[in-house]
Formats: sequence, structure tokens, C-alpha cells
Amino acid sequence: MGGTPLVSPSRLRDVLGVPNLWLKDETRTPTGSNKDRATALVLENAMRNEVHAVSCASTGNVAMSLAVGAAAAGVKATIFVPAEISEAKLRLILLAGATVLKVREGYEAAFELSREAARAFGWYDRNTGVNPLTLEAKKTVAFEIWEQLGRRVPDAVLGPVGDGPTLSAMMKGFRELKACGVSDRLPRVVAVQAEGCQPLKKAWDASDPVRSVQPETIAEGIAVGAPVSAALVLRDVRESGGSFVAVSDESMLEAIQTLAFTSGILAEPAGAAGLAGLQSALAAGLVERGEIVVAHVTGTGLKSPQYLRPEVSATEIGASLEEVERAVGLP
Amino acid sequence: MGGTPLVSPSRLRDVLGVPNLWLKDETRTPTGSNKDRATALVLENAMRNEVHAVSCASTGNVAMSLAVGAAAAGVKATIFVPAEISEAKLRLILLAGATVLKVREGYEAAFELSREAARAFGWYDRNTGVNPLTLEAKKTVAFEIWEQLGRRVPDAVLGPVGDGPTLSAMMKGFRELKACGVSDRLPRVVAVQAEGCQPLKKAWDASDPVRSVQPETIAEGIAVGAPVSAALVLRDVRESGGSFVAVSDESMLEAIQTLAFTSGILAEPAGAAGLAGLQSALAAGLVERGEIVVAHVTGTGLKSPQYLRPEVSATEIGASLEEVERAVGLP
Repeated sequence: MGGTPLVSPSRLRDVLGVPNLWLKDETRTPTGSNKDRATALVLENAMRNEVHAVSCASTGNVAMSLAVGAAAAGVKATIFVPAEISEAKLRLILLAGATVLKVREGYEAAFELSREAARAFGWYDRNTGVNPLTLEAKKTVAFEIWEQLGRRVPDAVLGPVGDGPTLSAMMKGFRELKACGVSDRLPRVVAVQAEGCQPLKKAWDASDPVRSVQPETIAEGIAVGAPVSAALVLRDVRESGGSFVAVSDESMLEAIQTLAFTSGILAEPAGAAGLAGLQSALAAGLVERGEIVVAHVTGTGLKSPQYLRPEVSATEIGASLEEVERAVGLP
Repeated sequence: MGGTPLVSPSRLRDVLGVPNLWLKDETRTPTGSNKDRATALVLENAMRNEVHAVSCASTGNVAMSLAVGAAAAGVKATIFVPAEISEAKLRLILLAGATVLKVREGYEAAFELSREAARAFGWYDRNTGVNPLTLEAKKTVAFEIWEQLGRRVPDAVLGPVGDGPTLSAMMKGFRELKACGVSDRLPRVVAVQAEGCQPLKKAWDASDPVRSVQPETIAEGIAVGAPVSAALVLRDVRESGGSFVAVSDESMLEAIQTLAFTSGILAEPAGAAGLAGLQSALAAGLVERGEIVVAHVTGTGLKSPQYLRPEVSATEIGASLEEVERAVGLP
């Protein structure tokens, strides 16, 4: 469930002054996030092995992806969520027929319980960072970028990092392209965390072990205080000669606006984090303006419309041309 | 902006007992509706002619499609909406940077004003049923279906009908396939209207001229009391040996549930109308169970989550395996 567009955003390039910027637009999958890549392969494997029940823990995109994918595949899905999940997301997951268990003790407990339940009841475990197929599926984004750029790897990629597998999987793909001999290097990866949840960036900056934090950010997709794939991400950033940046909630909201306004792409906060990070990376000299740069737009904003906050408002008018002229400021 | 999947919904086929049912899934375009087909061609033409301003009237999918498309193309969009437009949709349209004029007198007045303003100010008119390119763009869905079915036309197609161009354009495509000699017939078209807004079905049943009605349906996409393309639709249904059916709001909500639950497709009410109509058409003998049938799923439900109403709810549990067992009903 990949095959997403690599968008050449001409207006955004002009606005940012980055003439070789590309957007990998993962809002265009069946459920609007890159999680569908992993779900598809996991379900294919489940069916091949005649497993008829799958499960995972998630607050958002993975839950929705698995619920909808399982519905299409005819597989029973049991999904563990924290009790405070948003009503809108819950509705989408339930609509697809998944059994949803709200765990009172919160996300971390839901995650542990889902693993335990999968082992106890013989359910196939879809949890990202646990099921190795998720990496194998998500690495395909690197192959696509390479192909869409005319069989070359970019100079730098920017992507949001929460738990870690999305970015690690992409770097696994680029590493395999190099191992196959079709590219001679890895792109520098700029791993973007939220200011209110940056355990990996802090560990990187201080050369310390990763310490878990209490997430405080609107970017649900990367609000992970204790990243499962911390070691992999730190290695990927190091090996690629890359770096970490942290972005504020405000800058992600601005990046959502910029993406919509210049490129017609509707992203959620985590989905816009890569672009938000580009501004910081340019300012810090981590990315040069002339380089071939890919920002990974990982998920759609349609599922969380509360973060779509236009700066302008509509004008109410009566049905006359004069009122139109006045409203649109024609001379 | 087509190239949407023709889904082979195995579970839905079983549930309905229609083994050759297919779903043309137009929820997978950039803004989640078949309107993107028309917007893309209109904008391409606008750019080719160095027109830098476009406009339309719409309450929903067309507005969103044009706002987002114009943002991507760097063209100025002015969009006329009725004052009572939903806040969620308005937000999406504004986010893409369109100028939005809320017309106090309602949709019909907004439509007339948008045409008048386009003429007066030299804006390129995107209004469906007015701009002939919209039909040329939307007819491509027929070519895709023909190709995806292995170069044959289905026995029957079912699709929602409001203003009319979506269905007329599809039939124009099928007519051209016949004219080209690559098919020898038209598919029978079953045109689906909402019970609370069925001016075309009523005219068809009574062999009377079309009389405008006051729409009363949740299916915004087909809540059109005075269809612009009435004559074309009536001709298409007649020439194809087809028919009209009307479906209740309740049956569209059920079809949304069925689509999500069996096929993992999230539709809006109008988008699920084709499937809702299939049930009526089967009952009335308008479609045979063994026939090759395509239901046109025209738009995503993500933009109007208020109509996603799951029949089941989540179960709140504490973090223990025993509570999981009890909740999921394991022996």
C-alpha cells in the first residue's frame, strides 16, 4: 500500500528558497498515513499463515490502518487504545468493525497488554517496532524515492520521529540500495522531534542514554516518551552524517498551513514536522539550500481537523456583484 | 487526477450475494472525491491560457477540490458558498488559501452570483455542468473501469445523482468506448437519488418535466433540488435501458457501515448511495445477481465524520488479561 507521489512543490520551493525540495506525500494511502505500508504486508502474511486475528496498540494512525485493513482482508482485529482517545478517531476505528479495548492505565499499559494478549490468545501482533515485517514494508518508501528521483538518492531526508520505525525503515531501504550497488551513499537524515517530546534529540545532544519523557505536544504521531527503536534511530542518524532538530507545536501548525497553501497537501501535525524541521535545519546549516532534499509527509490532516487552523476567514456577503467587489478588494 | 482503484470486494460480494460486484473507489484522489478529475483538467487549461483566477460555487467537494487544486497550481480561487456551510468544510477550504464568500441568500444565489462574477471579473468558471471540460475530465472514469475490467464494460453501473454531471460524464465515456468500436453496448445505469431529494426520479416515474424540490437529505453531494444536467441524465438512463432508484438517509448510513466493515472504504452519504441503491435495485429486479456490476463510490467520509456512526462501541478495561478475555468473549 505504497506507491505514493513524490511531489515537486514549485510554489513551496520558491517560498523557502530550496529549489530541489521534494515532498513524499504519504497522505495518499488508503487510510492516509504511511502505516498502511506495514499493515498491508502484515495482513498478507497473516492470511498466508491462516491467522485470522490480529492486534495492536495505538492511539491513532496504526489503529485506523489496521482496523480498515483487517476489514478489507476479512481478519478480526482487536485494538488496544488509551482510554482518552479522541472520539473522532475512535469512531473511524469502530466503524471498520474492530474490537476496541480502552485501557484505563493509558498508552504504555495498552501497549504491554496488547503484546501479552497476542501471545496468550494466538493473535498476530501488528505492533510496529515489534513485528519485523513492519520495517520490511516501510523501507519501500526509500526505493520509491530513489526511483522517483530518477534512480538516485537525495542529499538529505527530513522526517518525524516518535517511536522510530518509520525513519529506521526508510534508512534500511537506503542502506539496501547502497548494498545492492545502485547508490554510493546514504542521504543525510534530519530526524525531527517535537519540542515537547524529544528524548532522542536530548540523548543525541548530550551523548547520554535515552531517558523517557512525558510527551507534551499536539503531534500525536510522534508523542512517544520512550521510543521503541531508539537505538536504531541514533545509529541511522550517526551513520548517515545526519542530525536531530526539535520543532514547536506552533511551527508544525504553520507548516500545515504552508503545505496546504502552497502545495494543496493537508497534513496532520506530525506529518508536517518534516517541513517544520527543514526551516530549523536550514537556519542551523544542517541542510544546504541547493541540495536535493526530501521531506516525508507521513499522515493526512483529514483525521484531525482540529489542527487545521486557517489564518483567514470567510466574508459574508449579500448576493450582489458590488458586494463581491468590495469583499475581494477589486479596484 | 483519476487512476483510482477498482476494488474487488470479496466480503461484500458474499454479504450481498453479488459475486461480480466491483467498487470504483474515488475516495482515493487528492481531496477524496471524483471532483478532482474535473478540477485538474480545468486548472491545466486555465494555466495554459494564462488565466490566474478561477471560481466556483459549491457547498462541499467541488469547493475543497478547487481550493486545494488552485493552491497546488498557484492560481487564485474565489469560492462562493451558502452562509450555512459546515465549519469543518469551511476550514479545509480556507486552509488552502481560497477566498471564500458566504452568500446570505443560499446556494442557488451563490451559484448565480459566481457565474455573474466570473463573467464580470474575468475569472475562469469551474462550475460543474457549466464548464464543458468538467465532463471531458470526469468521463475518464468510464475508460478506467473498462480497462480495469479487462477491456469490457460492466452490465450495470450504479451511481449517485444530484446535479447530474458525474453520471452523465461517466456515460459519455461509455458512449465513446462504443463509438470507438471497443465495446458493443452501454452499461445499464441505475441512477440513485436520495428519498428526500428526487426530482429526476419523480420526473422519470411520471414521465413529466423535472420540477425543482426543496432537498431534505443528509447526502449533501446529491442534495440538489434543481439539477443542472437533468436532460442529460434522463437521456442517459433511457438510452442505456437503465432506471432510477431512491434511497433513504438511513440506508445510506447503513451502506457507509457496510462499506467500512466489509471493504475498509470510508464513504460519505452520497458516496455510499450507489451501494445503498444496489439493494433496492436487486429487490426490484433492476440488476441481476450474476451480472457484472460497478458501484461508483464518489467521495470520502473523512471530510464529514458526523455521518460515520459505528453500531458498536469500545469497551473500557483495566490492564489485565482477564479483563481482555471477558471483553472479547473468549471462552
